[in-house]
Amino acid sequence: MEERSEDPYLPYDGGGDAIPLQELPKRGSNYAMSNGGGVVSSSTHLLDLLEEPIPGVGTYDDFHTIDWVREKCKDRERHRKINSKKKESAWEFTKSLYDAWSGWLVVTLTGLASGALAGVIDIAADWMNDLKEGVCLSAMWFNHEQCCWGSNETTFAERDKCPQWNSWAELILGQAEGPGSYIMNYFMYTFWALSFAFLAVCLVKVFAPYACGSGIPEIKTILSGFIIRGYLGKWTLMIKTITLVLAVASGLSLGKEGPLVHVACCCGNIFSYLFPKYSKNEAKKREVLSAASAAGVSVAFGAPIGGVLFSLEEVSYYFPLKTLWRSFFAALVAAFVLRSINPFGNSRLVLFYVEYHTPWYLFELVPFILLGVFGGLWGAFFIRANIAWCRRRKSTRFGKYPVLEVITVAAITAIVAFPNPYTRQNTSELIKELFTDCGPLESSQLCQYRSQMNGTRAYSDVSSQPSTPGVYSAMWQLCLALIFKIVMTIFTFGLKVPSGLFIPSMAIGAIAGRIVGIAVEQLAYYHHDWFLFKEWCEVGADCITPGLYAMVGAAACLGGVTRMTVSLVVIVFELTGGLEYIVPLMAAVMTSKWVGDAFGREGIYEAHIRLNGYPFLDAKEEFTHTTLAREVMRPRRSDPPLAVLTQDDLTVEELQTIISETSYNGFPVIVSKESQRLVGFALRRDITIAIENARRKQEGIMLNSRVYFTQHAPTLPADSPRPLKLRSILDMSPFTVTDHTPMEIVVDIFRKLGLRQCLVTHNGRLLGIITKKDILRHMAQMANQDPESIMFN
Amino acid sequence: MEERSEDPYLPYDGGGDAIPLQELPKRGSNYAMSNGGGVVSSSTHLLDLLEEPIPGVGTYDDFHTIDWVREKCKDRERHRKINSKKKESAWEFTKSLYDAWSGWLVVTLTGLASGALAGVIDIAADWMNDLKEGVCLSAMWFNHEQCCWGSNETTFAERDKCPQWNSWAELILGQAEGPGSYIMNYFMYTFWALSFAFLAVCLVKVFAPYACGSGIPEIKTILSGFIIRGYLGKWTLMIKTITLVLAVASGLSLGKEGPLVHVACCCGNIFSYLFPKYSKNEAKKREVLSAASAAGVSVAFGAPIGGVLFSLEEVSYYFPLKTLWRSFFAALVAAFVLRSINPFGNSRLVLFYVEYHTPWYLFELVPFILLGVFGGLWGAFFIRANIAWCRRRKSTRFGKYPVLEVITVAAITAIVAFPNPYTRQNTSELIKELFTDCGPLESSQLCQYRSQMNGTRAYSDVSSQPSTPGVYSAMWQLCLALIFKIVMTIFTFGLKVPSGLFIPSMAIGAIAGRIVGIAVEQLAYYHHDWFLFKEWCEVGADCITPGLYAMVGAAACLGGVTRMTVSLVVIVFELTGGLEYIVPLMAAVMTSKWVGDAFGREGIYEAHIRLNGYPFLDAKEEFTHTTLAREVMRPRRSDPPLAVLTQDDLTVEELQTIISETSYNGFPVIVSKESQRLVGFALRRDITIAIENARRKQEGIMLNSRVYFTQHAPTLPADSPRPLKLRSILDMSPFTVTDHTPMEIVVDIFRKLGLRQCLVTHNGRLLGIITKKDILRHMAQMANQDPESIMFN
Repeated sequence: MEERSEDPYLPYDGGGDAIPLQELPKRGSNYAMSNGGGVVSSSTHLLDLLEEPIPGVGTYDDFHTIDWVREKCKDRERHRKINSKKKESAWEFTKSLYDAWSGWLVVTLTGLASGALAGVIDIAADWMNDLKEGVCLSAMWFNHEQCCWGSNETTFAERDKCPQWNSWAELILGQAEGPGSYIMNYFMYTFWALSFAFLAVCLVKVFAPYACGSGIPEIKTILSGFIIRGYLGKWTLMIKTITLVLAVASGLSLGKEGPLVHVACCCGNIFSYLFPKYSKNEAKKREVLSAASAAGVSVAFGAPIGGVLFSLEEVSYYFPLKTLWRSFFAALVAAFVLRSINPFGNSRLVLFYVEYHTPWYLFELVPFILLGVFGGLWGAFFIRANIAWCRRRKSTRFGKYPVLEVITVAAITAIVAFPNPYTRQNTSELIKELFTDCGPLESSQLCQYRSQMNGTRAYSDVSSQPSTPGVYSAMWQLCLALIFKIVMTIFTFGLKVPSGLFIPSMAIGAIAGRIVGIAVEQLAYYHHDWFLFKEWCEVGADCITPGLYAMVGAAACLGGVTRMTVSLVVIVFELTGGLEYIVPLMAAVMTSKWVGDAFGREGIYEAHIRLNGYPFLDAKEEFTHTTLAREVMRPRRSDPPLAVLTQDDLTVEELQTIISETSYNGFPVIVSKESQRLVGFALRRDITIAIENARRKQEGIMLNSRVYFTQHAPTLPADSPRPLKLRSILDMSPFTVTDHTPMEIVVDIFRKLGLRQCLVTHNGRLLGIITKKDILRHMAQMANQDPESIMFN
Repeated sequence: MEERSEDPYLPYDGGGDAIPLQELPKRGSNYAMSNGGGVVSSSTHLLDLLEEPIPGVGTYDDFHTIDWVREKCKDRERHRKINSKKKESAWEFTKSLYDAWSGWLVVTLTGLASGALAGVIDIAADWMNDLKEGVCLSAMWFNHEQCCWGSNETTFAERDKCPQWNSWAELILGQAEGPGSYIMNYFMYTFWALSFAFLAVCLVKVFAPYACGSGIPEIKTILSGFIIRGYLGKWTLMIKTITLVLAVASGLSLGKEGPLVHVACCCGNIFSYLFPKYSKNEAKKREVLSAASAAGVSVAFGAPIGGVLFSLEEVSYYFPLKTLWRSFFAALVAAFVLRSINPFGNSRLVLFYVEYHTPWYLFELVPFILLGVFGGLWGAFFIRANIAWCRRRKSTRFGKYPVLEVITVAAITAIVAFPNPYTRQNTSELIKELFTDCGPLESSQLCQYRSQMNGTRAYSDVSSQPSTPGVYSAMWQLCLALIFKIVMTIFTFGLKVPSGLFIPSMAIGAIAGRIVGIAVEQLAYYHHDWFLFKEWCEVGADCITPGLYAMVGAAACLGGVTRMTVSLVVIVFELTGGLEYIVPLMAAVMTSKWVGDAFGREGIYEAHIRLNGYPFLDAKEEFTHTTLAREVMRPRRSDPPLAVLTQDDLTVEELQTIISETSYNGFPVIVSKESQRLVGFALRRDITIAIENARRKQEGIMLNSRVYFTQHAPTLPADSPRPLKLRSILDMSPFTVTDHTPMEIVVDIFRKLGLRQCLVTHNGRLLGIITKKDILRHMAQMANQDPESIMFN
């Protein structure tokens, strides 16, 4: 039975912690006590020796969700401590300066390392890719292009044929032409592709299983506040860098852009260990990782602003303005390092930088929007097909032989790819060729209908020629390449090698776009008196830019797969440099997103997150149901009652029984079972650590010792053993909602504040608990999915 | 005395709303009931006729803060309603389509209108600015440049002198040279400047007092969830557009860039009234305003991406990804409309678009960083001086004569500005001239030391000449212009005319930068054998770009005043188009921000918000104190007890007494005075409206009618009048925190969820309330400021 105070406005408790308002301390954070982990000893508690920090309290287990609010409080406490000590000595002042600058230092280091690694990967992948075709006799470490730089052949058409560069047939058979040499080259191409793929998958399997895939789904999950130990560690970094080169060189239908984000995040994570501010705080570490992912995209596409927007739009969860600024800095540093390495020899950050010179016309929006529709359809189809295949891999025996799978896919890819020049070459080079417009010096087969007349005509007449047989065969080859890429990408993404999705998606879009572009160009040539073309497309004038169509198609397909919007447009805008081409890009990307969303709102990364059952609360997805908190909370009607602790009448033994009999990660602490009034929340991990610590350090703690969470010890019989005070691990400000709160608000609170759990009350009494996992399960249930697919805490 | 249930896990109440869990409805949002305003009738409540929406419930008073959570719930409810009706008929389906598209429609319209208005303002301001100097006789509506387009004078030096253009002296006195004509021109310049200024201030004073200033502080406050009726209305738009032209033309030290954001936001607000989705929901309306402010900056600087980042970094409060995408769209639409209007005749969006061709060298970072220091110092000085002056204006009699003040400042500006060519000309043109590098065709006096030798030397030799007397006089004039601009800007910003700060700040920075640039250039010319210059600056080579220094200085000064970072760098980057110059810009902007922050962390807009006492909770400012919720909450120790309502034992009369005796905006509803257990929260405005509505519509409601907030009516004596049910206006999910919650967490919750108030409990009992105003007062108190400076709710 509770006591009652006469004045209803004064707090009054049946328990031991009734503190009249007059006695409240005016300074010092009582909350800090619940933070543990080295940040506890705020000045008000120095007297209480029992409340010194307990090592381990406030850390997390693997595959658990962090509590953003707690982490941010820890950081502010640390900051206050450093600030108050600052004036004590010059050493402390230096330490505070170091602390203040460590944020900039760590992003600078991350940017430097990401830029350097991207340069190394670019150069190595280029060299190994050319190794499949031949070798430079004068200098083994030169790739094909570098090998021929010194050559006397100066015409563009012949620039790839120089005596220093020997194909394998020339080296082994001694002949460059003929069916024998073709078969020899075919064989060596397949041999190298298989070797690279085999090496890559073995390295991943043996040394760093986390190095496979693109890494972006996992990074998204980690940034949303999940712990996956080792995912961003040094082994992953090393193996991912090496195997990424091998995988790209093996000719599989994958790109290095996504994995570069993972590589950059590994750098960010590793450098954050140099700074206690970041290594000891999971929330702060995620700020570095956000900046690192911006640097990753920056070097992948040479687009620093696009990288920052990618980090903001696609991967980050908590993105304060300070992080925006640092991400921008990291992205710039990385871009400049990469540019000074100059891996492509064109003083550009990426291979496929282009400049267009002709404007586009309003009518062209029709084919651009059609490309958007294609991109959206492709995205929706790819996501479904790839997820179905990956689910099959997960659920059947088939997933147990990753090496065999990689070898098979690599063999099929190499064998089918070699005969078609568009699939044989490096995908990045293919994209570059498709993006580039036909100029007078262009030797590409795609421009054959133009370049054939090069010798006899002036430049102004070069464009809008009728097509010649060359372009028909090129079109056929492009169509075959399109089908090949579509099929292979579905089976490749998800293999146990590093594999990005950006380049294959862009290649598919670029091929489709170029085909459409050439078709429109021919249409305009043959029907230039149509009302559509009449006004702006004169005979012989250069009115259609097929390269622009390729670029729009690439953006549309990438948009369909990832459902990125602003960042994608900005990335592609940074590739072309002209504000003018933003409108076609936006039209295509918007169409692609709408068409894709009509078939399912998830992008490929969200789909993979769901496939893997990670606890990811997507900020983009609206919660549209009308359920209330009490329908989602535990315990359900049929469940046993909620496991709670009372604030001052449990013994150590009872507490241990509760902990061992349940598997919950935390327990609400209440005043008494009768009143059900909530006092706070204690985490399982912290209780276990605190009891062990007390047993080791304090004498007299027995199994029948009383445990109390109140400020003062309860009055006990004279012969009872020494009580154990656990107030220091009690979170006295747990989040609560009422049982009538609509779930849409609860979901909003979880998302915006980054909660792990929230207690549910009804008219001031504790009723239940909602965890992040409960919410995700509920959302899965409402979407008619299996709620048990959410696997981690 | 409360009853107790034996099972502590089941909710059980002394009050009338004890609902065993088994009876809970599984669908339908009870919460919707508390939303009011047309969105209430969810299917579960159709039976209860008393709970039909009460008109007016859920709206806000002027100068009050909105409740973001409630607004978002209202919107979701509306969305669900439309979705469920969609399949009923073709008409409903069309309505749902219209609703889904209205977001895109409204941003498109906003972009179109902002672009068009910006174009009109540009052209009109240009024409009126030239009117101060003369008039085009052949066509009155031509400005100076357009007037001379048809002229035969083709050399650049002579391009401004054409027979069609007549200065006032020529027109009135009939002579173009001599002291008499100079005095005549001086007089006419001052006359027009004063007329424009007088007209501007009178229009503002009479028709739309909200049209004055830059508008950005108020827009920030509105976007953070504050109601200022009429601030974004049609009158403000009209008067601001007209007076902005007049103010710019009057030659005052102000710009049109900030006010353009206000103009764009007015457009956004006005168009949002066409769509009930936005007009009836304050939170959704703010999404449109965020997009509109991006469009405003986009047309002000010709920087769509920079505009989006400005909206994100500087003005917006709630910026979901959907808004990011729409802002980008609005910014692009606006930019393209402006470009098709082509106000500057150069097919660029802004006057001061430049392209540089020489790279910068590492050593130059030293002067760039010095410019950053200057920018930071200027920013800090300007903020202090301007705020001190504005406070004086507010507090003394002096502020009562705005017309006189404007006239005085305009007169001083015109009289001092005319003799100096750099202050006489339009500030935008000055910035353009300072940004532009000296080429062979440049006629500017700044390049005199170069252009003099133009006739006799080849272009490659043009640069790095020794200075001639011309450049010395230019330097002197620049120095005087710098001092003039610094002094006048302090007194101009805050006048009762539309006045932007971007252009004056940029002008000051550009002048300082150009001076530094010329100084470094001369240094390099005379000391090209110093070790600093030796390696990269050969004799006669073009190694220093003074225009780049001007641009870096402009960015630094703007950064110092506004404390913008990423958006500023991106805006200036979009002016130059070269990724290369981002590093100098970043170095200067970062330095400027750090130096400025050392003197005070507030930017000019935050300072003006604080000066005006708006309830703005800055997301950038960290709350670093260790106070707890119970130290901030009301009632304080000496205060009367918290005004609460009990759920079922008040009469209408008692309720009205409580409302009339207090001025609180809302009241917590509790089970009973004894238990102090919280049931919900009811807003003052809603209670008043509901009682009035009930009196009008329901019979039998008397002063002694019982008021109840429970599900079922309490059991009453037989002769008592009909009770009044107010459950529909009760918010049954009020936010609560415990009294131990650190204020840093409370501030975080308020910021991220956009709360209006939060209740404080201790062990399940209601203890007090914290409102946004309480938090702002507490923060002001902690910063040793007057807590009473926070004026609005």
